[in-house]
Amino acid sequence: MTPSPLAAALGARMHAEMAQQPAVLAGLVHRWPELTAQVAALTEGAAPFGVAFLARGSSDHAALLGRYAVELYTGLPTCLVAPSLTTAYRREPKGFANWLLVALSQSGRTPEIVDLARRYAAAGARVIAVTNDAGSDLAAAAHLSIALEAGPELAVPATKTVTAQLLAVLAIASGLPGSGLTQSQLLGLPAAVAQVLDDPEPARHAAPLLAAADRLAVVGRGACYPAALEGALKLQETTGLMAHGFSTADFRHGPIADCGPAAPALLLAGSGPADPDTVAVGDALRDRGAPVLVAGTAPGADLPWPATGTLAECVPAVVRAQQLALATARRLGLDPDRPRGLNKVTMTA
Amino acid sequence: MTPSPLAAALGARMHAEMAQQPAVLAGLVHRWPELTAQVAALTEGAAPFGVAFLARGSSDHAALLGRYAVELYTGLPTCLVAPSLTTAYRREPKGFANWLLVALSQSGRTPEIVDLARRYAAAGARVIAVTNDAGSDLAAAAHLSIALEAGPELAVPATKTVTAQLLAVLAIASGLPGSGLTQSQLLGLPAAVAQVLDDPEPARHAAPLLAAADRLAVVGRGACYPAALEGALKLQETTGLMAHGFSTADFRHGPIADCGPAAPALLLAGSGPADPDTVAVGDALRDRGAPVLVAGTAPGADLPWPATGTLAECVPAVVRAQQLALATARRLGLDPDRPRGLNKVTMTA
Repeated sequence: MTPSPLAAALGARMHAEMAQQPAVLAGLVHRWPELTAQVAALTEGAAPFGVAFLARGSSDHAALLGRYAVELYTGLPTCLVAPSLTTAYRREPKGFANWLLVALSQSGRTPEIVDLARRYAAAGARVIAVTNDAGSDLAAAAHLSIALEAGPELAVPATKTVTAQLLAVLAIASGLPGSGLTQSQLLGLPAAVAQVLDDPEPARHAAPLLAAADRLAVVGRGACYPAALEGALKLQETTGLMAHGFSTADFRHGPIADCGPAAPALLLAGSGPADPDTVAVGDALRDRGAPVLVAGTAPGADLPWPATGTLAECVPAVVRAQQLALATARRLGLDPDRPRGLNKVTMTA
Repeated sequence: MTPSPLAAALGARMHAEMAQQPAVLAGLVHRWPELTAQVAALTEGAAPFGVAFLARGSSDHAALLGRYAVELYTGLPTCLVAPSLTTAYRREPKGFANWLLVALSQSGRTPEIVDLARRYAAAGARVIAVTNDAGSDLAAAAHLSIALEAGPELAVPATKTVTAQLLAVLAIASGLPGSGLTQSQLLGLPAAVAQVLDDPEPARHAAPLLAAADRLAVVGRGACYPAALEGALKLQETTGLMAHGFSTADFRHGPIADCGPAAPALLLAGSGPADPDTVAVGDALRDRGAPVLVAGTAPGADLPWPATGTLAECVPAVVRAQQLALATARRLGLDPDRPRGLNKVTMTA
């Protein structure tokens, strides 16, 4: 099934930027020793009291993976900053001496993220900026700047910068004292992502189902939970589909009741210990008559990806969702490079 | 517009339990000195390193309010526990010595919450259980048990136990060293909730709009963000409407693109500093042709509530959403007391 020339032109930038992901990820894996050494130097080899993550939008999904990674690989307490406490309620952060703050912004220019990073630094936190612009205000506000080196991203839906952020937060977790994550565990990731990108047919095959739906649940747990949120956001941005991401456990608490013949579900389930629970939800969904797409490492998955181990399996899960978003937008005749009413840098008061 | 006898019989339990909320909340306000003293005794008057919240489902919305309240009123770092790290990935919590863990479960019987509370206690955290059953396993696992004393809750959608939890986490924040929240600021809350409950007409008036929609965005920020999540969950559970809650800031980052003539939005905006941002989103929504319901303290709000000050304004926001859920379910001829396919205690592996 070759896409028509017209359909291929839709989302040409998004497609090209997605295709750069193996190279961008390989660059980060190659820089692993340098990045982890920088993190270790920042913390002077001593464990911080905790690690806080600061982000908005798709960067927030990398923040979520980061909090899983830090807790899983180091055992340190982690938190996700609630920006409105400072920006709206005017509460200055305190109690963050000896904490690490990881601030993520693809552009490095989201004003509230830059402002909050400065305030956390003033409150005693050591600040790491993760951006795709080493010359940005956010990079300048940080004690350590980790550049994604993903190259310019012009399509509105962030793709290569998101997967690069996912890997960057794993590098940060890897550089903390006592971390159980090492470079050797990530060496296969770029090739796994390339394998997914070289296989766009499953997404094209699934696109008619999503194009005909007006809502979709995207469900995952553990490493696949941030991927579910990111995948849902990508589908929202590019197709107008009301897609929503859920943790598998929360999904059982209510949202599952909304799935049925006209409301399909996309299950993201890799090779980690949290994933069988997600596969099991498929039976309950099928009982409700809901069409179910399974992406992951299980035999017979509709959208397969190779098992990579570690929380990095979030990355191929996100790439599968990117493919679905691109293919569904094209099926609908929409241009995902320029979704209606969205801007590349979102200004939050 | 008097509901028909049949419609009034639908959700009779939910309605009766909602009506008990002023009395339940007044009970907690009355116990404020005792509750805050117990929290102070548990922490021995010294600030913990941080406060972690542990919950699932609607209890998780109280946890979210709790993290806002602790950060806003005390400045302490807070986090929301990711249960799968322990239950699936088998990472034992560590680094939580001198932390406070607040575990919330209406029944006190959700197995993974009980198990995790025990593990955090073993890791050195001081554990507070917030339950509606002082004899439950969760209460027994904690160093301090705060009973909601809300009486039996039989309808599947939790109502009075949720608003009681919202107030209980404020009491915990109030009992921590240096807290800026005091009992005197909560004295008006029960009457404000009674005023909302005595005015069901706005929800009945709005019900036809929601009954005709198949999706809905519920949007709020600050105190109204947990209310947006809880309101969306109540509507999902009771009506099958695909309702989703968003923080106002995240909503601008993508989901707003899904709203339009067939996809209305419910904006929750009270009298706090984060609320004008939510009201402002209304203009962008109306430009898209999306029907907008405004609940809150602004003049002309479709579903008004009295300004109460403090993060407790989350409570009347939740009650307005409960009314909308009940009225919409009745309009659809559904019985919210027994939604299809949901159980009162959700078992998560």
